[in-house]
Amino acid sequence: MDFSSFVTSLGTSLIIFVLLMLLFTWLARKPGNAVIYYPNRILMGLDPLEGRTLTRNPLAWIKEAVKASEADVIAAAGVDATVYLVFLSSVLLPVAATDNGTQSTTDSNSHGTFKNLDKLTMGHVQVQSSRLWAFLLGVYWVSFVTYYVLWKSYTHVSDLRARAKSSAVVKPEEFAVLVRDIPAAPPGQSMKDHVDSYFRALHPETFYKSMVVTDNKKANKIWEETEGYRKKLARAEVVYAGSKTTGKPEGTRPTNRTGFLGLVGPKVDTIDHCNEKIQELLPKLEAEHKITLKEKQQGAALVFFSSKPAAVSASQTIHAQKIDTWTLMEAPEPRQVLWTNLPKKFYEREIRSLIVYGIVFLTVCFFMIPITFVSAFTTLENLKKYLPFLKKIVDQPEIKTVLEAYLPQIALIVFMALLPAFLVFLSKEEGIPSESHAVRAASGKYFYFIVFNVFLGVTIGGTLFGSLKEIIKKPKDIITLLGSSLPKSATFFVTYVALKFFVGYGLELSRLVPLIIFHLKKKFLCKTEAEVKEAWAPGDFGYATRFPNDMLIITIVLCYSVIAPIIIPFGVVYFGLGWLVARNQALKVYVPRYESNGRMWPHMHARIVAALIVYQITMLGYIGILREFPYATLLIPVIVISFIFAYVCKQRFYLAFFHTPLEVACQGTKEIPNMESIYSAYIPPCLSTEKHEDVDRFEDAHSHSLRTTSL
Amino acid sequence: MDFSSFVTSLGTSLIIFVLLMLLFTWLARKPGNAVIYYPNRILMGLDPLEGRTLTRNPLAWIKEAVKASEADVIAAAGVDATVYLVFLSSVLLPVAATDNGTQSTTDSNSHGTFKNLDKLTMGHVQVQSSRLWAFLLGVYWVSFVTYYVLWKSYTHVSDLRARAKSSAVVKPEEFAVLVRDIPAAPPGQSMKDHVDSYFRALHPETFYKSMVVTDNKKANKIWEETEGYRKKLARAEVVYAGSKTTGKPEGTRPTNRTGFLGLVGPKVDTIDHCNEKIQELLPKLEAEHKITLKEKQQGAALVFFSSKPAAVSASQTIHAQKIDTWTLMEAPEPRQVLWTNLPKKFYEREIRSLIVYGIVFLTVCFFMIPITFVSAFTTLENLKKYLPFLKKIVDQPEIKTVLEAYLPQIALIVFMALLPAFLVFLSKEEGIPSESHAVRAASGKYFYFIVFNVFLGVTIGGTLFGSLKEIIKKPKDIITLLGSSLPKSATFFVTYVALKFFVGYGLELSRLVPLIIFHLKKKFLCKTEAEVKEAWAPGDFGYATRFPNDMLIITIVLCYSVIAPIIIPFGVVYFGLGWLVARNQALKVYVPRYESNGRMWPHMHARIVAALIVYQITMLGYIGILREFPYATLLIPVIVISFIFAYVCKQRFYLAFFHTPLEVACQGTKEIPNMESIYSAYIPPCLSTEKHEDVDRFEDAHSHSLRTTSL
Repeated sequence: MDFSSFVTSLGTSLIIFVLLMLLFTWLARKPGNAVIYYPNRILMGLDPLEGRTLTRNPLAWIKEAVKASEADVIAAAGVDATVYLVFLSSVLLPVAATDNGTQSTTDSNSHGTFKNLDKLTMGHVQVQSSRLWAFLLGVYWVSFVTYYVLWKSYTHVSDLRARAKSSAVVKPEEFAVLVRDIPAAPPGQSMKDHVDSYFRALHPETFYKSMVVTDNKKANKIWEETEGYRKKLARAEVVYAGSKTTGKPEGTRPTNRTGFLGLVGPKVDTIDHCNEKIQELLPKLEAEHKITLKEKQQGAALVFFSSKPAAVSASQTIHAQKIDTWTLMEAPEPRQVLWTNLPKKFYEREIRSLIVYGIVFLTVCFFMIPITFVSAFTTLENLKKYLPFLKKIVDQPEIKTVLEAYLPQIALIVFMALLPAFLVFLSKEEGIPSESHAVRAASGKYFYFIVFNVFLGVTIGGTLFGSLKEIIKKPKDIITLLGSSLPKSATFFVTYVALKFFVGYGLELSRLVPLIIFHLKKKFLCKTEAEVKEAWAPGDFGYATRFPNDMLIITIVLCYSVIAPIIIPFGVVYFGLGWLVARNQALKVYVPRYESNGRMWPHMHARIVAALIVYQITMLGYIGILREFPYATLLIPVIVISFIFAYVCKQRFYLAFFHTPLEVACQGTKEIPNMESIYSAYIPPCLSTEKHEDVDRFEDAHSHSLRTTSL
Repeated sequence: MDFSSFVTSLGTSLIIFVLLMLLFTWLARKPGNAVIYYPNRILMGLDPLEGRTLTRNPLAWIKEAVKASEADVIAAAGVDATVYLVFLSSVLLPVAATDNGTQSTTDSNSHGTFKNLDKLTMGHVQVQSSRLWAFLLGVYWVSFVTYYVLWKSYTHVSDLRARAKSSAVVKPEEFAVLVRDIPAAPPGQSMKDHVDSYFRALHPETFYKSMVVTDNKKANKIWEETEGYRKKLARAEVVYAGSKTTGKPEGTRPTNRTGFLGLVGPKVDTIDHCNEKIQELLPKLEAEHKITLKEKQQGAALVFFSSKPAAVSASQTIHAQKIDTWTLMEAPEPRQVLWTNLPKKFYEREIRSLIVYGIVFLTVCFFMIPITFVSAFTTLENLKKYLPFLKKIVDQPEIKTVLEAYLPQIALIVFMALLPAFLVFLSKEEGIPSESHAVRAASGKYFYFIVFNVFLGVTIGGTLFGSLKEIIKKPKDIITLLGSSLPKSATFFVTYVALKFFVGYGLELSRLVPLIIFHLKKKFLCKTEAEVKEAWAPGDFGYATRFPNDMLIITIVLCYSVIAPIIIPFGVVYFGLGWLVARNQALKVYVPRYESNGRMWPHMHARIVAALIVYQITMLGYIGILREFPYATLLIPVIVISFIFAYVCKQRFYLAFFHTPLEVACQGTKEIPNMESIYSAYIPPCLSTEKHEDVDRFEDAHSHSLRTTSL
């Protein structure tokens, strides 16, 4: 694509961004929108505008985002969000470093007019030019900056995690251990007694209680039905109250039909109907509780200990002589337990994840094709060729340029949008016990997908149609291929990145979509307070997609940094701006759905290193094979170093993210917490009874507390 | 080699064996030899001949070996020896199974005269003969028998281990944990206090004491010197006493020269001289003790807990947030601790083992060459060609045949004899903390070595000189190569196995070499009781070499079983006889140097499975490629199954051999043992003081015991 369309693309992006920013400043000042722009503060019961003068300055939010301390972020959005910010800031530096790394070459390239963008790329650097030394050094410089930053960040995050885990606040999961693969109870003994006797024998001093996982499908169904009627009732009452006007003080009782979608069937008084329904459902639920707790106990349990260190060392100690039974792990937070996965057996889980990875593999390969087509066909020439009826529209210059600039990128983004939900679903099918773990797994899969399809897909695919022969000639040596393909698709990615951050962050910040949805809902649907609240519930950072997307950008920027240095400033802006926006959203908008204390970091770290290695290999191939630079072999050591670095980091830090070190568990509060509340935190909603004295009802299903629980 | 020489080889072996057996029966009955044939019983203070009538029956020992129960073996030779016997018996069955597996083919081959041994091999089975179905089924049959037996054995050994570990006998190592990679102590604090405060904080209830590892080089030197003089003194006194004859009641006091080797320097009265020396050394030792314990503390320690479960779960729990510091593991037995390795740091160990494996790799490759030469050159034709002066001798028929039969095997055995010590040395250099672990590591290396060099070396090497071209043509597909080479070197291995068991076991059983050495020593060297005892000290099974050698035989027998069924009976005899002999030696002769409770088993298991897979692949190559049997692909599933089997076994059993399961640790004695004696069991001899009240002297270096130690 030619230079003008490139500039147009950037221009349009920039304009959109500015508009969105202004919109944001304007909308954010309307008190009615506070729930959209400061939901997180509101939910924490803070005054959304506290300490904030209603300035017209559209950049005020930046000042706030910058001056907020890490402690504030942790307080507002939890450790995970903080770690995500660490991630953004710690890739920012290497990306910036690439700039210095290639300064010399950019200088030497950037003089002269910008007729053709590819001037900016390395495509025209002479073969064996001694200027290639600069590139070599560039690679080393970037690598070592990355090592340094990553090491610092890993230490920092590891400390963050430790501090969070050793905080004085009592967290139920720190006193619980998840036990799976429990062998069948001996005849005549309930699973519950089985578990109790086993753990009481092995932890006589510290065992407090156990809660056997039960099959709650039926109970859940009844419970949801009840809740449904409760909502309906509340709604009906509001409507009724609303209908009591001065002119008509007795009001009109709302009615509905009992049949399908309330369209057919006899007409009934909604309030009475709901009340009846609830009245008949409650005893049912009661009964179902009893049955579930008594007869639907399954081969997994949560075991509670009377101290953090006890729980921690129990979770790390092999209990059974047959390792594939009585497998223990630290319990996930109550809010993120995936109950239905807990009873899945060891080998079933193994097989399931095998199958899932098979499916993912197929998906990755299968998606390769459409993306390749898109990147090859979505040029105007092709469009006109294949969709002649578009000719008229397309031929108008302004539309033409815009289309030219955006067509491929938009196609790509649409593709990307389809996947995440599917991947999360797959990950859950693996038998993973917690939400955060599933999201982690999904983001891993998404990362593979995105790197293969977008990065390789577009890079090689772009040339695939241009030079199919040469690939068939030498399909193996990906290095050469990568090296030779990169310059060609450089401009594509520059615009891709630009689009991502200008439009992407603009929308993110201004929250236009949620705002509109909220107002519509509020106007036409929501009657009760609860419904309104639901309508503006902000949700959390979608790590499963957000982080892999950033990873894609890192990979792109690193790999193109030397070949097309112009991408570097875009990379810098992407992560700089990204950091600001994410910080703002963390402080004011998003509400974490769970807290994994930065468990995500090792994966982020590993993938950054992976991206670095891809970068190094690409350079090796590019400088060595395509520019026939004899000294390119000097890049091999740095690749080796990258692997050593990865290994050492794993050895030093990883396990502390997998298990809790005793050192950490022993810090923080020593006083004995209220074990009963810890225990009942894990009672699933469908089995929970509003009043807590009633907790003894769970005796059958759950545990006979011990006389002494104090250490 | 032709059939006659083959038979001769077997014949001679058999004769040697019979002779040795008779010799054994005769010698074993002389009371003077009891210390050679029943040392283990004597050391345990049993009557060597108890319950044994001095029969002339040369097979009496077999009856005894068979009727002894497993409990007897454990009592006499420990769990390791028992596990080794389980290993022998559990390979016996699959090997025997190969027989049935290939019955059909042997039948079809074995009729007719034995002009040419290769008749017996599969070399002449027609291409694509439908008889190949029998081989296919054979492979499946053997595989499944192996799976079954291995599963049973693994379960059995796992139980053996559990029983041993949960026995009521108090073992010091069960209350201790080895701590390495201890970070430098804060300034002004001794390493000792550092360790104490750390563990007292994390295990307030169960921490008993710690013993910081010290650098004992100097102390050791002095101590050994002292011991030397003690021995000398004892010896001199015996000599003196002996010189007191009736004719010369005052006797002659022995003298020696103080100079080099007692050959030069002034003449002194040995007894007085030694006494003086000891008197001057003792205070020196005292002083050195103090210095060592105070100033030579290093970054490793043994930490003692007041209960088994506490020690076990501590050893499995991550303590430090930085995983490469404060690394814990279960303490090895006092007698097998490799003290100098303990303070080696984490990454140092990693690097060391990298280097060691590099060296091993080189050794394996480097040895390949000589062995290949040997197996190719040691045929009489070659000998005569290259060493014409031998012609005369070699041409005499009887020598000729014997030489022909043995030359290659002997060469091989000599090669094998050089290595083990070297490998054990290498393994210790890796920084491994215990003797048994080092032996395990060495046997692993030895296994690679032996499989590569003997098995592949001879198999391929044998043809290497015959058909160098075809290998250069297709160096890659080892499968074809193996398949095609096997039949040619079959006869070599048959005789190799025969030699191994007839002569090898004959010598093992009759213990001729140790017997002769003992009698010589006794006659000319030993003066004191201690010296005599040293002279007949039996030592233990040399697992480092014994087990890999057996593994080699398994590999050979399995791989040749279908191609040259005649090897099967030899294999069966090898393991059957081996089991008997080993049992006899375990019951009467060997004294274990250490006890690792069958820690070796997982390695044995893994390697048997590996051998099985080699066998399956060889068959695939042989039947498929060389016999062009289209259905050979039906062997691929069974190979996959083998891998799955290996995986499942690892998941189910392995960790219980690596860590002690809590379940196991909690069984056995509950009463609190004498912690002081447990603690002092680890005091190295050079630092130990004869009288135990004196243990407080170790306060500086070792630990301030706590007030309360009871759980």
